[in-house]
Amino acid sequence: MNGTLTALRVLDVRFPTSRELDGSDAMNADPDYSAAYVILATDRDDGLEGHGLTFTIGRGNEVVVAGIEALRPLLVGQPLAAFTEAPGAFHRQLASGDAQLRWLGPEKGVMQLAVAAVVNALWDLWAKIEGKPLWKLLSDLSPAQLVELVDWRYLTDALTPEEARRSLDRLAPTRAAREGELRELGYPAYTTSVGWLGYPDEKVARRCREALAAGFSRFKLKIGANRADDLRRVALVRREIGEAGVLMVDANQRWDVGQAIEWVSALAPARPLWIEEPTSPDDILGHVAIARALAPLGIGVATGEMISNRVVWKQLLASRAVSFCQLDFCRMSGVNEMVATLLLASRFGVPVCPHAGGVGLCEYVQHASIFDYIAVSGALENRAIEYVDHLHEHFVDPCVIRGGRYQVPTAAGASITMKAESLQAHAFPGGAIWRNGRS
Amino acid sequence: MNGTLTALRVLDVRFPTSRELDGSDAMNADPDYSAAYVILATDRDDGLEGHGLTFTIGRGNEVVVAGIEALRPLLVGQPLAAFTEAPGAFHRQLASGDAQLRWLGPEKGVMQLAVAAVVNALWDLWAKIEGKPLWKLLSDLSPAQLVELVDWRYLTDALTPEEARRSLDRLAPTRAAREGELRELGYPAYTTSVGWLGYPDEKVARRCREALAAGFSRFKLKIGANRADDLRRVALVRREIGEAGVLMVDANQRWDVGQAIEWVSALAPARPLWIEEPTSPDDILGHVAIARALAPLGIGVATGEMISNRVVWKQLLASRAVSFCQLDFCRMSGVNEMVATLLLASRFGVPVCPHAGGVGLCEYVQHASIFDYIAVSGALENRAIEYVDHLHEHFVDPCVIRGGRYQVPTAAGASITMKAESLQAHAFPGGAIWRNGRS
Repeated sequence: MNGTLTALRVLDVRFPTSRELDGSDAMNADPDYSAAYVILATDRDDGLEGHGLTFTIGRGNEVVVAGIEALRPLLVGQPLAAFTEAPGAFHRQLASGDAQLRWLGPEKGVMQLAVAAVVNALWDLWAKIEGKPLWKLLSDLSPAQLVELVDWRYLTDALTPEEARRSLDRLAPTRAAREGELRELGYPAYTTSVGWLGYPDEKVARRCREALAAGFSRFKLKIGANRADDLRRVALVRREIGEAGVLMVDANQRWDVGQAIEWVSALAPARPLWIEEPTSPDDILGHVAIARALAPLGIGVATGEMISNRVVWKQLLASRAVSFCQLDFCRMSGVNEMVATLLLASRFGVPVCPHAGGVGLCEYVQHASIFDYIAVSGALENRAIEYVDHLHEHFVDPCVIRGGRYQVPTAAGASITMKAESLQAHAFPGGAIWRNGRS
Repeated sequence: MNGTLTALRVLDVRFPTSRELDGSDAMNADPDYSAAYVILATDRDDGLEGHGLTFTIGRGNEVVVAGIEALRPLLVGQPLAAFTEAPGAFHRQLASGDAQLRWLGPEKGVMQLAVAAVVNALWDLWAKIEGKPLWKLLSDLSPAQLVELVDWRYLTDALTPEEARRSLDRLAPTRAAREGELRELGYPAYTTSVGWLGYPDEKVARRCREALAAGFSRFKLKIGANRADDLRRVALVRREIGEAGVLMVDANQRWDVGQAIEWVSALAPARPLWIEEPTSPDDILGHVAIARALAPLGIGVATGEMISNRVVWKQLLASRAVSFCQLDFCRMSGVNEMVATLLLASRFGVPVCPHAGGVGLCEYVQHASIFDYIAVSGALENRAIEYVDHLHEHFVDPCVIRGGRYQVPTAAGASITMKAESLQAHAFPGGAIWRNGRS
């Protein structure tokens, strides 16, 4: 791979989603979906750029931009081959190799979000150069190459590189069959667009009916602000989606451990598949307690959108704190840490249902789940990718849902390149959307 | 309390400590001790300012500065009484009350470091107005007031406000006696200045002898880079400090779980009191495994300098993952989260030996330990404050060590105000120290 990384541009892009209460939940009443957006350029003749973003919900997006700027010396001037020939080592250098920057985390918070945008832009660039969608680039790597992607530090008490290699080897001969299957049928999705917390009941009911008509069979409802409201809303959704529909509920970290157990137990008659983010994402042992209490009711525990790195995932998975792994493509340090988490989830037999929504997350995580099925877990049972019907129109290659399933992306790259006019209009604070107030 | 917060200044201050290998350890080879430094001004007649800092080790300090700037709207224009009449509610608003900013953590990484600087500046200001050192301001608060300081969210499965209140009530009548004792005798210290990883053996030996002569009886050595070196160095320190001396070792997160157990077991003949930071600070269950394996050897586990918040502390303490709590005054969101952690440590009977060194941490944490003895734990057994002999000359009221003990601070405030000329000379990148290259 020839060429040198010659430039890094960082954009602060924000969408005024708070104006419609789309995305509202028990902890996030008024998010403005935003992205710290990276564009990497090279001196190659093809003129291809790597695009990557990390997702935030508004204020503070500029702090992530500053975090990305701090990574500039690790990027600009590097030969592209330094990444493509040793993507694991390159990722590790970005995520924790500079001890002074590592101090700011380590591997969590603003710097981890910043690393995600950069790492994912590198992968987007590589995939575009190869002329492959990201999932295909990953699925064409050998087991040995996949093992090299992962920072194994702090993982070996749960999974060693050798064990991961053996597991990947077992699935390698049958990758092509699973790829063909997904190209034909797509990957199952669930919808979160039926039940944001700010929606009145009639809107929830209407959106359930619309989603059913569109082919969805799995539906997620935001809860956690008011118990009486929750009881009424889960019953409403259960009525609308029928006994065969799958219902998930999401409290966005609203509760303490005891309160979570009590509150969710009361919702058991509506048969939720999982309670998502019942409490603090830092509370591994709290999740264990909640999972044990709810297991007899048939309710699983899910979390992930605020899990920062593989070390926390290792514990959540090994201790059975979660029965669903909702890894996030930007919260962790990008593709490499995502691969580490898929390997851990497979090791412990926990299905991955990635966190999506926001801006660009649906575009991103489809690559994770498709790659997971082809090369890592080889399984679809209890798996579905979150889908939220916001902001896709800003992307050059938006995700495509048909019959409640993600269609396999075919364009080269990570599907994350935003349209130039969208980047311009939503630039904060200077873009037209923000200069003009209400759009 | 009259007055309004009228201005927030943020300074990027850095010290070129990497030039001497002071502060070098197995993960941090070349730190430049740095601070994102906050000055809060009011419209009060007394002209007092609140000073606060958060500690970093160089690159990326500017990202924390950006994080502090993001908090400006929550501070400037607020009446001072909003803080002094409800310091817990005010802290909670800064640390997690703005959902958009909370997304960047939550309560971890750059934003948590930024909140620490601001919260601690508020406490410094309040203490200066009251004419008391910070420890005294805290020790004069009633049990009910102390309970109000804490964000109880996510804690109640381990400790409730009522339980904390009862514990504080029990010690309240005897606070004055413990205060008198500390004013007379000081608070025990241990020294980390004998054994930075970059020091040659003869320098370690010489510094052990100097520390013994200065009255120290507890000594910490950095290890973790090379096993043969470590075996030689722990034996050397044990010889120098004698059988009665207390030895601690610190690996700065260098190992995986299995490796930590094996490596530290080999050091058992030198009888270390604790192994500090054996592995990732995120690996609660890993610390549990290490603690269980080393307990039969009489070696405890310590960690804390990279523990971000009370939720992680709750788990480390409740699960006996640590036998020493090394809370950090800046890594968490400042005084309030420190009080939460002291209450949790007391609940589980774990001694607190705060993380210090860096720049300003010794000045800060003496207030935590003194307050802990007077009002929270009432105990000194197995407790000592870390001491590192760097950079104290830059503070207006530096900590004072005599006979291996911290002398109780008497000046008003949090002891963290830096000399104006130091702030100016070390401003990055424009200050004289940095403009002139090697100082």
